[in-house]
Amino acid sequence: MDVIKVKAVSRTAAVAGAIAGVIREHKHAEVQAIGAGAVNQSIKALILAKNFLDQDGITVVFIPEFVNVEIDGKVRTAIKFIIEPR
Amino acid sequence: MDVIKVKAVSRTAAVAGAIAGVIREHKHAEVQAIGAGAVNQSIKALILAKNFLDQDGITVVFIPEFVNVEIDGKVRTAIKFIIEPR
Repeated sequence: MDVIKVKAVSRTAAVAGAIAGVIREHKHAEVQAIGAGAVNQSIKALILAKNFLDQDGITVVFIPEFVNVEIDGKVRTAIKFIIEPR
Repeated sequence: MDVIKVKAVSRTAAVAGAIAGVIREHKHAEVQAIGAGAVNQSIKALILAKNFLDQDGITVVFIPEFVNVEIDGKVRTAIKFIIEPR
């Protein structure tokens, strides 16, 4: 299962659809964002995904954590959101 | 119980301490943020609070939602994070 990577310019509806699809199939999804714009966009997508899944009778919760990722040889701190049914 | 309001310039450790304190007392806390900088700061504080509470044996989860708030007579969309023990 791939991590869904979100950027500041990602479309929230597209990300939300991806999250909802992964949750329906795997009962677990992960979203990763680096920087304030990407984190903000992730949260909006998480809210939309939550609303999509509510309509399917699936209540999800979110657990954020810090992760270190290497980009172009530099270590950066990303935020990973784990999404699971409650 | 008051909503914990977070700004882009809020200190994450202070916000995290407030969240952990409210959870210990009420088993429910709410954090509100407007704008990408404030949302990003809220997430960092939520991760710290989660780590504090893990040490007390309390596992928390987060549920984000949109809320409309009126500021200086203008309606703005804020993000509210509900924090509860899993």
